[in-house]
Amino acid sequence: MGSTYGKIFKIATFGESHGVGIGVIIEGCPAGVSFDTDFIQSELTRRKPGQSRITTQRREADEFEVLSGVFEGKTTGTPIAMVIRNEDQRSKDYSHIAAQFRPSHADYTYQAKYGVRDYRGGGRSSARETAARVAAGALAKLLLNDLGVHIQAYVSQVGAMKLEKQYTELDLTLTETNAVRCPDPEMAQKMFDYIDDVRKQGDSVGGVVNCVIKGAPVGWGEPVFDKLHAELGKAMLSINAVKGFEYGSGFEGVTMLGSQHNDAFFMDENNAVHTRSNHSGGIQGGISNGEDIYFRVAFKPVATIMQDQESVDQHGDVAVVQGKGRHDPCVVPRAVPIVEAMAALVLADFYLRNKSSKI
Amino acid sequence: MGSTYGKIFKIATFGESHGVGIGVIIEGCPAGVSFDTDFIQSELTRRKPGQSRITTQRREADEFEVLSGVFEGKTTGTPIAMVIRNEDQRSKDYSHIAAQFRPSHADYTYQAKYGVRDYRGGGRSSARETAARVAAGALAKLLLNDLGVHIQAYVSQVGAMKLEKQYTELDLTLTETNAVRCPDPEMAQKMFDYIDDVRKQGDSVGGVVNCVIKGAPVGWGEPVFDKLHAELGKAMLSINAVKGFEYGSGFEGVTMLGSQHNDAFFMDENNAVHTRSNHSGGIQGGISNGEDIYFRVAFKPVATIMQDQESVDQHGDVAVVQGKGRHDPCVVPRAVPIVEAMAALVLADFYLRNKSSKI
Amino acid sequence: MGSTYGKIFKIATFGESHGVGIGVIIEGCPAGVSFDTDFIQSELTRRKPGQSRITTQRREADEFEVLSGVFEGKTTGTPIAMVIRNEDQRSKDYSHIAAQFRPSHADYTYQAKYGVRDYRGGGRSSARETAARVAAGALAKLLLNDLGVHIQAYVSQVGAMKLEKQYTELDLTLTETNAVRCPDPEMAQKMFDYIDDVRKQGDSVGGVVNCVIKGAPVGWGEPVFDKLHAELGKAMLSINAVKGFEYGSGFEGVTMLGSQHNDAFFMDENNAVHTRSNHSGGIQGGISNGEDIYFRVAFKPVATIMQDQESVDQHGDVAVVQGKGRHDPCVVPRAVPIVEAMAALVLADFYLRNKSSKI
Amino acid sequence: MGSTYGKIFKIATFGESHGVGIGVIIEGCPAGVSFDTDFIQSELTRRKPGQSRITTQRREADEFEVLSGVFEGKTTGTPIAMVIRNEDQRSKDYSHIAAQFRPSHADYTYQAKYGVRDYRGGGRSSARETAARVAAGALAKLLLNDLGVHIQAYVSQVGAMKLEKQYTELDLTLTETNAVRCPDPEMAQKMFDYIDDVRKQGDSVGGVVNCVIKGAPVGWGEPVFDKLHAELGKAMLSINAVKGFEYGSGFEGVTMLGSQHNDAFFMDENNAVHTRSNHSGGIQGGISNGEDIYFRVAFKPVATIMQDQESVDQHGDVAVVQGKGRHDPCVVPRAVPIVEAMAALVLADFYLRNKSSKI
Repeated sequence: MGSTYGKIFKIATFGESHGVGIGVIIEGCPAGVSFDTDFIQSELTRRKPGQSRITTQRREADEFEVLSGVFEGKTTGTPIAMVIRNEDQRSKDYSHIAAQFRPSHADYTYQAKYGVRDYRGGGRSSARETAARVAAGALAKLLLNDLGVHIQAYVSQVGAMKLEKQYTELDLTLTETNAVRCPDPEMAQKMFDYIDDVRKQGDSVGGVVNCVIKGAPVGWGEPVFDKLHAELGKAMLSINAVKGFEYGSGFEGVTMLGSQHNDAFFMDENNAVHTRSNHSGGIQGGISNGEDIYFRVAFKPVATIMQDQESVDQHGDVAVVQGKGRHDPCVVPRAVPIVEAMAALVLADFYLRNKSSKI
Repeated sequence: MGSTYGKIFKIATFGESHGVGIGVIIEGCPAGVSFDTDFIQSELTRRKPGQSRITTQRREADEFEVLSGVFEGKTTGTPIAMVIRNEDQRSKDYSHIAAQFRPSHADYTYQAKYGVRDYRGGGRSSARETAARVAAGALAKLLLNDLGVHIQAYVSQVGAMKLEKQYTELDLTLTETNAVRCPDPEMAQKMFDYIDDVRKQGDSVGGVVNCVIKGAPVGWGEPVFDKLHAELGKAMLSINAVKGFEYGSGFEGVTMLGSQHNDAFFMDENNAVHTRSNHSGGIQGGISNGEDIYFRVAFKPVATIMQDQESVDQHGDVAVVQGKGRHDPCVVPRAVPIVEAMAALVLADFYLRNKSSKI
Repeated sequence: MGSTYGKIFKIATFGESHGVGIGVIIEGCPAGVSFDTDFIQSELTRRKPGQSRITTQRREADEFEVLSGVFEGKTTGTPIAMVIRNEDQRSKDYSHIAAQFRPSHADYTYQAKYGVRDYRGGGRSSARETAARVAAGALAKLLLNDLGVHIQAYVSQVGAMKLEKQYTELDLTLTETNAVRCPDPEMAQKMFDYIDDVRKQGDSVGGVVNCVIKGAPVGWGEPVFDKLHAELGKAMLSINAVKGFEYGSGFEGVTMLGSQHNDAFFMDENNAVHTRSNHSGGIQGGISNGEDIYFRVAFKPVATIMQDQESVDQHGDVAVVQGKGRHDPCVVPRAVPIVEAMAALVLADFYLRNKSSKI
Repeated sequence: MGSTYGKIFKIATFGESHGVGIGVIIEGCPAGVSFDTDFIQSELTRRKPGQSRITTQRREADEFEVLSGVFEGKTTGTPIAMVIRNEDQRSKDYSHIAAQFRPSHADYTYQAKYGVRDYRGGGRSSARETAARVAAGALAKLLLNDLGVHIQAYVSQVGAMKLEKQYTELDLTLTETNAVRCPDPEMAQKMFDYIDDVRKQGDSVGGVVNCVIKGAPVGWGEPVFDKLHAELGKAMLSINAVKGFEYGSGFEGVTMLGSQHNDAFFMDENNAVHTRSNHSGGIQGGISNGEDIYFRVAFKPVATIMQDQESVDQHGDVAVVQGKGRHDPCVVPRAVPIVEAMAALVLADFYLRNKSSKI
């Protein structure tokens, strides 16, 4: 019972990898948002498989249908249902692992928890579910655009290859110019080649996605538990294969002294409060402070590899999981729109929640 | 409106640093849990100020009173309210900063969000609120103890001083033998001296708390959003001064190949499924798999330092925030019981949520 | 943002009367429930229009499609999405009232609240939405059947024609033998003729649906706010056209003395606690006590009538709403399965919530 | 786990009849509401026992203490905790019924559900809990006052004595002039004498409380489940001893034809939309339409009577519950402020929820 997210701008996703389809209901989206179908489709296309030879070759058009909540091009304040039908359901690919527990997948834990599972392609635990998040997140982005809030994610690390520059030193408009979604073209090429090598070896590798949010006003976030960064963290950690989250100075900030880390306040030329540095990552006391919000998300190497692996099956027998099927050798290029979508969902919710702060 | 946590085992905290008191209501605790008052008090004592010269000298007995929900030593299934009255309310210490925004504190964001704030000692944004969490978490621990689940946190890093050993190589029973709460006595002494130096300079420094959970059964966690590690992450990130969270292989895991990272399954001598390695950190697909659960939490240097700092005030005027008051030079020693408490709250909730997995 | 119901067994409905379709996501249904497609379809058929000449002649097959959450005939513990596509979308029937506010409909309040509305057939406010509830409620019934809990509703009043007998004096198996769904065949015929007369006059009339729940164990209900009867009341009042709810002795109970009203306890032959009378309606202190649960639901005359009515339009001009379209002259016959469905959803949720009462 | 109410303006109550005290946390109250301590106390005084000889003689000052969330006379947007300590804890009065199940009380159901209960004075199931609701409701009233929304409840029936006049024909300012809280002084005297007779017989009797809300703007209520009247119904049904709820035309409306029941729209002199009649009770499609909101709440005779009653005890043995202790012979006079408080909590929540209706 964990397939809903949000307090006011709420989503409920459904669907399995090889079932009829996946989808989402968005409840709590205010009336009057322009529903830009093309934009939503373009976001789904950024996530869909088969974009280049370093992503899975599974074929899905990932076209969505709107079932409700939109009338004459506007949201109506009622629930918006979107469905993406599964097309490429090669279930036979998976029949040989019906009883097997693939290492570092969710097969074993789902079986133990529920006593039954749709084993085809990981069923509910498949990252295919994130398409529903991207569709919902695209609508959240449309809402945020009207408020002047923009979200941009990019790949900053693949394996040990790490972009050492901060986001402020990069031209983020270059992110979408290459298959890796790294805004440094030279590094992007190296990363591409490396991922392609890993793919040829039938292996996989991890990576890091960075995200920057510009234009968020002061006041979003609801302490003491629903701090802005705590919800961003939960949202990111809920994405398949994520192992870590840090914002602002993050894990490196622990080595600093307070006198180095503190962000001094000053009044800018427009008489607005700003900070000289931004180790806080745009969030203080769990509430946005008007500076850029930025964070990093760690993705492990995907569990599906083209190599035989030791395992057991549902009956407790030793099994060899054979390397078969289609997979992403590195998840981060396709994770970029997912990270943005989840960030958008978090922010849209806090925008609405903040409406009740004052009488 | 973010002062509640949990879906079934739910807590709602209240209280300000220099108000009448702080406290918590726990709703959803099952009836029949032995309410061990001494244990709960001992957990509060682990968190309370004034434990050594490297923690704040503020004096609080942190004694709690139970107002409801307990009868003849057992929980009754009704809400349990606990209150800790504030004793050492030296509000005059803070009057000089009534209108000032202390750098990297929540003064500015609270003022902007709510239009009014209790400026005394940070008001609601003070880490004093975590005493309420520790009280509630202690009750969650009592519930988990009955299920054979044990939680142990410890300090693994202070500034750049980092314990390189894994938890499996440490004797965690030594954690409480020193003021730093580091299970390596030699490193603990070095950390202590370093924190003391930082304190003398009127500065502060960050650190890392690790946490290990043993005995959690297979099946806890509710995908796709309320994954076990996603809720642990949110819970940890909701603690004051936390900047990052990683579990299992974490950020380092991104550099590994799938063939290295995957945890092979095998049957142990008791015919139970186990994994040969545990890069998954005891969680697969967002659900506990029966292995040890472990994670790391990054704390920034605390914002209060004994040095003058540039800032502005509520009127938009330049201000110098003077270094005054009592503070912790490093938050991690006192954060250890808080991390444990939040982990216990997350687990108790998932234990109850999991009761509905199967018919 | 009120289109979800339930705490653990949760539903989220979507869809408009003349949009693409309506549907529901059920989250929190335990794994392992046999998903009886025929039964669910039969429940939808009990609610669908066009059953007799005293129900609306709108034609809808009301066939549903399952998109997720079911595998090999069993629920899997993941969200179950069901969609019912709209077929008979004669939107032109409604174009003449696009800007008009139909008396005692939701046109005016939706327009004022959201600033935009799908005016076709009432859009989201149409009772067509209840088909999604019936589909979800049918699944809840399947779960409850396994627990030995059975729900039976029937029509007890149409206009001033009132069945004076209690449910204990009636043969409820006769309910489905007539178009009115009244278990007294003689009264049913009178009611049928009366509704048909009202229909011929282009008018409508109200009625009462009674409901009896047998087999609910002791312990369902969560005081102090989520009392069993409080949730039943909310669930019933959320159905279109409902104006009142009473359970047990209800409004008549106010005239009794405590000495008459109190239900004396005794031990039955199986050493189970029972009550000699049941003015409590099977619920004491908000928790089921093992006796039959029974309640009554008042439905107003439906607002759509075949007569011209005074009104205003969106522009503030006087308008005459013309009697057109297809409607139910009396809603109670088709409301019977809806009342049962909502009762089933309430009970399924409390069954799951009660799992956490004791350690 | 049902001791919380509300989605944004949320309350969590705690406390037992004979424990340390009862209280409430209010979360989600906007910052900036003037916290009028005297008003809140006066509302508690309206509810407290011992007001006249027709209410229980139990003595409680019902003075409250604020623990948090208020600073310099204003709410701060943080949780507001209020505690009312129990004074008159004559627990010995109840020791003789420790193992007995009092007829039509919650003793049996609590024991069965939780396996343990605080038997003193009904413990958590005591109506004493409603004092916490009144305190929270008083704050909600303060918020609503600023919005021009006023709530007025009154006694309309005691036993068979029923005020036949509608609220529009009564002078509601007379409600508080008599101990019964009936705005018709003559009827009030008759009701008083009747209740006093019932009291002398050691018996109890039921009654009805009516409530009118004036000034609520168009737009409050969140269909399809959280309709304004559905939440009002749930809130009222959650009050101890309530057996029924109806709004607008209620149960009598079922006998009307649609042509009689429909409320025609017209534009008033201020160019505002209004209805000529108000059978809708100020709510259409679950959303307030700007007319007066009115409803009725049925209370059964209180279960405690001064007569011996047949029962059983926890061990399954036959028991005679003896008539002892102090009780209200009729609950409705003291229920008036409780009904108002719950209505205020419902409305405050919908005021805040409605802020998200449009972009």
